[in-house]
Amino acid sequence: MEDCIFCRIASEEIASYKVYEDGKFFAFLDVNPKNKGHTLVIPKEHARWVWDVEDAGGYMEVCKRIALAMKKAFGTDYVACAILGEEVPHAHIHLIPRFPKDGHGGTINFSLTKSFSDAEMREFATLISQNIKK
Amino acid sequence: MEDCIFCRIASEEIASYKVYEDGKFFAFLDVNPKNKGHTLVIPKEHARWVWDVEDAGGYMEVCKRIALAMKKAFGTDYVACAILGEEVPHAHIHLIPRFPKDGHGGTINFSLTKSFSDAEMREFATLISQNIKK
Repeated sequence: MEDCIFCRIASEEIASYKVYEDGKFFAFLDVNPKNKGHTLVIPKEHARWVWDVEDAGGYMEVCKRIALAMKKAFGTDYVACAILGEEVPHAHIHLIPRFPKDGHGGTINFSLTKSFSDAEMREFATLISQNIKK
Repeated sequence: MEDCIFCRIASEEIASYKVYEDGKFFAFLDVNPKNKGHTLVIPKEHARWVWDVEDAGGYMEVCKRIALAMKKAFGTDYVACAILGEEVPHAHIHLIPRFPKDGHGGTINFSLTKSFSDAEMREFATLISQNIKK
């Protein structure tokens, strides 16, 4: 879709901190991160909701590879995930590494946005990316 | 695992408002629902985290079928999903139907628990269950 910001990110018309890409899916850092490494995984082909994505299984397999990479990259056992969908009308899955005393308590506090420098964001994206198994 | 409450629910040693079951996965209503129809989808074989479940793709395909059933059952386009994991140490995916003015705002407010009667819970489980495509 022409006016969809996530379609434009997936086609790299808009730059992002890219974490992963294959023929069907694209992953990049959320610019309003809830923790370091907070990633959005989206289908390249526009879909309104995650549940509209035909290859739901393949979508989750990509999320799992990224979640396992985050565990290695950031030395944590805990990677949270959320599917909401009102923020941007293009299917997206949030993957959020969790850490002790990260301020999120037992859930994800979406009003708690953290601030990282451009250099840090690049480093997080590279760290995750390098740890994704082929 | 002997002492795991979700293992005991999956084996039906502990009763639950069952929504779905196949050879690998089991789904039942959360007894602390954030909205009507709030369901937990778990693997039958014990795993600590969702990302430890071998068949991540199959897991998500089951979640998708239940999410699509919820849309029909409750007449909503919006089904949220969360993977947290500290509450019970057995992999589980939350599926939560969303409604206008349901009190959750743009995300999921996990401190907002709703109260439904036993009859209502049975009705929700049946409604979802009947709408799951084979």
